[in-house]
Formats: sequence, structure tokens, C-alpha cells
Amino acid sequence: MASFAEAIAVDGKDGTYTASLDPEWTVSGKPHGGYLLAVMAHAAILADDERAHPHPLSASAVYVTPPAVGPATIEVEHLRRGRGASHVRARLVQDQGTRVEALFTLGRLTDHAEPSWVDRRPPAMTPLEECPVSEIAPPGAGVRVEMLNVVEQRLDPASFRPADGGPGYQSGTGEFRSWLSFADGTPFDALSLLYAADSSPPATLTLGSVGWVPTVEMTVYIRAVPEPGPLRIRQHARVLGAPVVDQVCEIWDSSDRVVAQATQLAFVRLREA
Amino acid sequence: MASFAEAIAVDGKDGTYTASLDPEWTVSGKPHGGYLLAVMAHAAILADDERAHPHPLSASAVYVTPPAVGPATIEVEHLRRGRGASHVRARLVQDQGTRVEALFTLGRLTDHAEPSWVDRRPPAMTPLEECPVSEIAPPGAGVRVEMLNVVEQRLDPASFRPADGGPGYQSGTGEFRSWLSFADGTPFDALSLLYAADSSPPATLTLGSVGWVPTVEMTVYIRAVPEPGPLRIRQHARVLGAPVVDQVCEIWDSSDRVVAQATQLAFVRLREA
Repeated sequence: MASFAEAIAVDGKDGTYTASLDPEWTVSGKPHGGYLLAVMAHAAILADDERAHPHPLSASAVYVTPPAVGPATIEVEHLRRGRGASHVRARLVQDQGTRVEALFTLGRLTDHAEPSWVDRRPPAMTPLEECPVSEIAPPGAGVRVEMLNVVEQRLDPASFRPADGGPGYQSGTGEFRSWLSFADGTPFDALSLLYAADSSPPATLTLGSVGWVPTVEMTVYIRAVPEPGPLRIRQHARVLGAPVVDQVCEIWDSSDRVVAQATQLAFVRLREA
Repeated sequence: MASFAEAIAVDGKDGTYTASLDPEWTVSGKPHGGYLLAVMAHAAILADDERAHPHPLSASAVYVTPPAVGPATIEVEHLRRGRGASHVRARLVQDQGTRVEALFTLGRLTDHAEPSWVDRRPPAMTPLEECPVSEIAPPGAGVRVEMLNVVEQRLDPASFRPADGGPGYQSGTGEFRSWLSFADGTPFDALSLLYAADSSPPATLTLGSVGWVPTVEMTVYIRAVPEPGPLRIRQHARVLGAPVVDQVCEIWDSSDRVVAQATQLAFVRLREA
């Protein structure tokens, strides 16, 4: 079992890097979108200046074609080298084709102040030990979430349990709240938060969507280096109008601080009425 | 006075386009970020297939260096030509330097269904005629918002008026609600929504920020072609931790439908305590 740091290892210089996309960080055999963003951010940081700008402040990606597990190339180009922040473009290529393209702002989070204002408190959560551990092959989901071998995800039943107490996820809330830890106990850092920001099951499952919900575009802002301990993640849908849905993700660390925020646009299919 | 359509005109072919950045769509003499995104989206649509994909579904940009009013080049590269949607990269260049780089997903919004679910109703707004028209040079703001010659923006006093009824914006709400129309009466379309998504004053003014709040990254999702009539815009700050703040923007049309959603990360300065 590879650690997350091993799984996002890249090798290279002068803007060209190779990675081996890990078979464990996958959903139904395809590399996970948040994992891919972390691999690309890793290459972007090495191409820039790892000491001056060790953290991704913003990451925006379009998912062009799903890559396969195995070797991939990441091409990094500088848009601007700055003192406080750099702007970098990264492209993940397999078989001469662009699979993911992303724009990054790189900087140093530890220069950032404690927030002077936040719009709301962390969500009320059912205690971690009372939340069921997510299964790799949830009954009827039609997907196999291999990455659940390497992370422990616990979904808050208060967010997904149908009002009649029945089985399934169709609570009608448009929201999943979850706890997330690495199975090997590694604490999260700024890079692995890019993975965490895409780790939740689609919130549309609570609204009756079927099958996978492939991401078209995802933007993540990393706001702080997290304190050790499980993350609390709120994933919620805002406007569900087939064929697309947008979802917002917010992540809090064990000190109740917002550490990451994400938004994504994805294709969605609805159950026949 | 150029219409918005004239101000975002581009000319060219085969992925290389020229534009003339308009002196009216500016803030303190610099082209406005949402206007620039619309110019780039225009070039992206022409480089793709205007009939099959007339609308930007997603737009993500990093603002590298502010461009100047006047001639600019937009270089467009295809990442994927698809039937339902294409992915395109666009780069706005002046004096051989990248000023803005953006990733677009292009498609056709009219193929999209009415939403089957939304997370909330449009905000309660003070009626348009009771909201003051924004001034080009607000007292003490230190900026000159020239674009307010070509749009009519009315800020809802309920969102910005301090609790003690005093002057200024420092309501502590972290939110501006506004009405927006073109001064020449043109209805909004999918491209001009990219401008509207960045049209609000920074919501941090209600929290005591000073000076301009330059955008680092902005992502916009266009969800529907708007019905004619003034837009209602809610801009709110989520986490304000100098030197950066994130702001979320939601836009409703006259039929109460969400037509655009945006998120941006920006640099901010706070008043000395």
C-alpha cells in the first residue's frame, strides 16, 4: 500500500515530470480527480520554487479525458514568477493526449493570518464513531471505490438517511457530511487537501442521481495547512439541472478552521421519474 | 459609447484573435476582470464551433498581470473537441506577456433542463427603485469605477448600511446584494454574464477592507441564458484571512432562475484595528 506522498511522487526537471498514476487512488479503476490534481500540483511546486511557494493557494482544472493507471507526463509552464505567489499551468498527458489541464497559484500559507471573519461555524456532525465507514462497493451504486482501501471515510447518517428511515441515501438534503482520514494515519497537508476536496460521494445521490457523476471543472482554494486529525467535509449541490450539477465542498480541520473550499461542475443522470 | 457586444469584439481565425480592450469597461483605468473573461470566452467560442457550442458552461481564469486598455491578442488552443462540449484554453497576451489565462468548457445551454432541485430561493431584495445607483467615484473608496457609466448598478442598502444607520458600507454582513442592467438597455446573455459575475463591489467593504481587491483566480459557471430584465446579484465573502479572501457570487434572472455562479480568490487589505 503506497502512502499518499508516494502515490503523488513525480520525477523530472525544467518543467517536464513523470508520474506513475497509482492503482489504489481510483474509482472503478480510473484515477480519482482530486488525486490527479494533487499529482499535478506536486509537479507545479517542484517546477516553481518549493521553498518560497510550497503550497497551492488556488487550483482550477478541466477534466478532458480520463487517464489510465500507469505512467503519465506532467508539463508545467510558468505564467508568472512572483515573490509572494507564482502562477503556473500544468498539463497531464498520456499517449500524446491532454487528460487534465490545470492552473495553479502557488504561495506560502504560513504567511497567512488567522481569519478575521468567517461566514459560518463548522457544521454540526454526528460523532465519528457513530458514522458508518463507507464501503468500497456500496450496494446498487454501480461503482467500485477502490480509494476507500487507503482512506477511511465515514458519512454522517443525518445527512443521507431518508426521512422514512429506509435504506439508501435519498434524504433529499442535497448534502453529504463526512469524516475523512488516511488509513495509514498520515495527517493531511496542503497537497492532500486537493484530494480531500473531491473525496465525497456526489451529493446528488441524496437527490436520486444514478451512476457516476464525472467532473467537468473543479476549482479548489487551500486556505490553511490543517492541524492533525480527521477532516470534516461538507459537500452540497446547489443547482441540479441535467445534464449538469454544481457542487460546493468545504473542509474544516480539528481546530475548527476552514482549510479548503472547492466548487465543481459535473455531468449527472437522474433516476427516471 | 460601445455596447458590450462591441466592446468584446474579436477578429481572427485559426486560434489567434485580436481585440481592442475598451476604455469604458474599466476600474481605475484598468480593464475589468469579468469583461476580460468575456472577451476571452468570445474568442474561445469562435475558435471552437459557434453553432454547436455557443455558450461558456465553465470559465476558470488566473489573473497574471493587469493588461492595459488597447490592443491585445488572444491565443486559443483546443484541449478536446467534443459533441456535447469542448474544452479550450485561452491566453490573453499584451507585449509578449500573458496577462490572463483561462480554461473554458463550451456547450449549448438550451439543451439543459429546468433545474429539478435548487438549494435555495432568490434573496429577498429591496425594490430596485429604492436602491441607490452606484457612483463612479464613491467617496473615500480610492477607486474610480468607470464601468458604471455603461452599466446601472444599484446596491441594496439592507446589505451594506451599518447597523447604527451611519454612512459607508461597513454593515458587517460580508455581503452585497445588487441589481444590474446595461445602461443601453441590452438584455444580458451567456457571455455578458461572465462580466456580471465579477461586477459587484468586493463584499469585504462591508467588513472594513480598504482599497482595491485584485482577483487572483475566478471561476464562473453559466447555468442558463437569462430572461430579459435586471439581474439580482448576491456577492458574499466566506473566509477573510489576509492576505486573501474568497467570495461567492450568485446571479438570478427576472424569472427567479439561477443563471450564473462564481467563486473568486483575491488579495485584500484590512483597515488597521
